[in-house]
Amino acid sequence: MDSIRSLNTIVDFALNTGKKRLVVAVAQDDDVLKAVKSAVDYDLVSPILVGDGYKIQALAKEAGLILTDSEIIDEPDNGLACLQAVKIVADGNADILMKGMVGTAQLAKVVLNKEFGLLTGGLLSHVAFFESPHYHKILCVTDAALNISPGFNEKVDIVKNAVSVYEKLGMSDPLVAILAPVEIINPKIESTVHASMLSAMQKQGQIPGCIIDGPFALDAAISTEAARHKGLTSEVAGNADILVVPEINSGNILYKSLNFLGGAACAAIVAGARIPVVLTSRSDHDRSKFLSIALAVAMIP
Amino acid sequence: MDSIRSLNTIVDFALNTGKKRLVVAVAQDDDVLKAVKSAVDYDLVSPILVGDGYKIQALAKEAGLILTDSEIIDEPDNGLACLQAVKIVADGNADILMKGMVGTAQLAKVVLNKEFGLLTGGLLSHVAFFESPHYHKILCVTDAALNISPGFNEKVDIVKNAVSVYEKLGMSDPLVAILAPVEIINPKIESTVHASMLSAMQKQGQIPGCIIDGPFALDAAISTEAARHKGLTSEVAGNADILVVPEINSGNILYKSLNFLGGAACAAIVAGARIPVVLTSRSDHDRSKFLSIALAVAMIP
Repeated sequence: MDSIRSLNTIVDFALNTGKKRLVVAVAQDDDVLKAVKSAVDYDLVSPILVGDGYKIQALAKEAGLILTDSEIIDEPDNGLACLQAVKIVADGNADILMKGMVGTAQLAKVVLNKEFGLLTGGLLSHVAFFESPHYHKILCVTDAALNISPGFNEKVDIVKNAVSVYEKLGMSDPLVAILAPVEIINPKIESTVHASMLSAMQKQGQIPGCIIDGPFALDAAISTEAARHKGLTSEVAGNADILVVPEINSGNILYKSLNFLGGAACAAIVAGARIPVVLTSRSDHDRSKFLSIALAVAMIP
Repeated sequence: MDSIRSLNTIVDFALNTGKKRLVVAVAQDDDVLKAVKSAVDYDLVSPILVGDGYKIQALAKEAGLILTDSEIIDEPDNGLACLQAVKIVADGNADILMKGMVGTAQLAKVVLNKEFGLLTGGLLSHVAFFESPHYHKILCVTDAALNISPGFNEKVDIVKNAVSVYEKLGMSDPLVAILAPVEIINPKIESTVHASMLSAMQKQGQIPGCIIDGPFALDAAISTEAARHKGLTSEVAGNADILVVPEINSGNILYKSLNFLGGAACAAIVAGARIPVVLTSRSDHDRSKFLSIALAVAMIP
């Protein structure tokens, strides 16, 4: 496809790739279980829910999710539930890992344990897709959640991970805008330095499969009018697919701003591991959690 | 007033404080002149436009702004026009300084020159008011434009400047949320450390006239549902008036996100100088520039 127009496109894409096995670590969360129910109703996943079996049964019933005994693994301890869920994926008995009612750090620690073979050597990074009423296509924001203050090499991996997600959705050469507060290179503002280097690397063929430009302030990246007003001539300016944020403060703010002050819908996964990981925020809605499961399903051919 | 509900409230407030003298540095910009025309039509300001006289005349005519000879000071050189405009303010011949078609750095250099006596000893900082369709009152974002990476003492000044703007608008004890990517204190994430210290300082009476809490991710600061989901009990959570951003990357992104992906309207000034400075972005709309002039007018009793 030429560009991704809506999050429903991702659901359609997921439906075409077929049903996957989803394991949830610490699954006793009502929004998570509502999202799993939607994914089951769409025939996108067969679930394995690890956590407090009693609570999972009760919340699943409330959510209208009917489970067989084999779909629940009773492990009330959160740390052990994370371990169990990751082992299920590591043993090839599930295709997707999803975080439930547990801190990101606690689950990440297990995923990052080399013993389980889920790492590929690249960085793990968070890739979020937004459908905004104020933009003409899906806007990808990365990394808004995982890497606190990525250095230059980490930024390269962050770009590559996002581009690989687009590739898996059948879209080539997404337009990547490297965000900064200004469009000029200011050695005092690291984001502008990173932007100039990433842009140059792409032009030298070191980062294939995408078109990178920047530094751009957000307006220049997504508004053709703002880009024109600023005198920018770039095929990325005003028309970006992927926004690479400078670090976690700005990424988290953009993510939350789109969700809570922008009327946008969201789907997000962690890319860079051997399997897609669904890692939604506690305050995300269940629709967003469902869309994230669909995005994860779409990642597996 | 208890809280500020809309930007029109600020225009009304400005109308009540009476007409002010506005000097624009490098005034040859169509959006700036359209905004000045609106402010003149509202009888909010009498303008002095410093810059390329020929271009100013032509653009003013296009904007429907009728000027007398004494309202234009012909100075085609941008540096000298900035100098001239600042001198007019310094000599007490204008109440408000506005940036036209010139870089922020070029104008700031002159404002920051101690010789002109515009400084008060405190930090200059950018204070922006947003009217968002997704929030129940005006949301203030600071500092989204001026201070690149403010240290702790600068953050204190940034809070004080924003609080003083609320005071001038007749509103006491605004709720100040210090933003970070998470709600826990993580010594590796400076924004969370700053938040804990600012919050403690306010409770100790060191920052009067406001109620400070944090660290909050953006959602916890502005969504009662997100705050509840995260188990936060704070009168600031979900109901913030002022959002203090960690640094310029995140501030600029929030500012642009609200403007370009949030359908919000905006008014902004620079606070902390002896006079209010209007410093809009090139990509801001003329309505936003007009509202910023109104906010500056409202700052002067």
